[in-house]
Amino acid sequence: MIIRLDHIGIAVQNVNDALKFFEGALGMKLDHVALEEGGRTEVAFLPVGGTEVELVEPKDTDSGLAKFLAKRGEGIHHICFEVDDIDAALARLKEHGAQLIDETPRVNASGMQYAFIHPKSAHGVLIELYQKAKA
Amino acid sequence: MIIRLDHIGIAVQNVNDALKFFEGALGMKLDHVALEEGGRTEVAFLPVGGTEVELVEPKDTDSGLAKFLAKRGEGIHHICFEVDDIDAALARLKEHGAQLIDETPRVNASGMQYAFIHPKSAHGVLIELYQKAKA
Repeated sequence: MIIRLDHIGIAVQNVNDALKFFEGALGMKLDHVALEEGGRTEVAFLPVGGTEVELVEPKDTDSGLAKFLAKRGEGIHHICFEVDDIDAALARLKEHGAQLIDETPRVNASGMQYAFIHPKSAHGVLIELYQKAKA
Repeated sequence: MIIRLDHIGIAVQNVNDALKFFEGALGMKLDHVALEEGGRTEVAFLPVGGTEVELVEPKDTDSGLAKFLAKRGEGIHHICFEVDDIDAALARLKEHGAQLIDETPRVNASGMQYAFIHPKSAHGVLIELYQKAKA
């Protein structure tokens, strides 16, 4: 059901500043930097062995990400697993009484479906599930 | 230099309780549970697509992990990257002014070398580097 770890999202104050560490000092390879979510987030993508580290900087002040940064400071914000059947995954979670942020999947512009599980149910970890768009 | 993400370590109060979520509700596959670090930590290993989620429960009260749990509660504790040359990786980090928890690698019973980078230098993320034992 869970295929792979797609990425780890790290909340940072400033992507370029964070790249000095992750690319410069740690030696990770930067794939690209992009504005996501209609310009609300700037993301640096650093692939590593079949998964990816994403450095995410909020460009607004009212998103969950911006609030997380203001409250908790920089650090790991969420992890994202790819699943083969997101509806089945959410149904299974509900059966087990897990609290979901998204009861049904959201769909992005490219047809990808995704949903977040509440960290209260996931031992303090914000977990995103996503399913690739059907071809 | 960085080969892959080896694992994500999630600090939990109780491994068996956490497995109800990660194995039961989320549908991850449990490989095994083991006592590590001379019985100071209980760890559940859940491999997923080339990397691994590790649920780590402290069995003492004075370890860094136990203090993390007491202060921050459950959640992601660290991420671990496999490197091909840990000495070179630490040298590069030092050159860039990164603060290290371990200036030189620690070595475990099976000859694996590992070292932690301080989260102050790594944008709030506790990062472990490890290099496999030489054959």
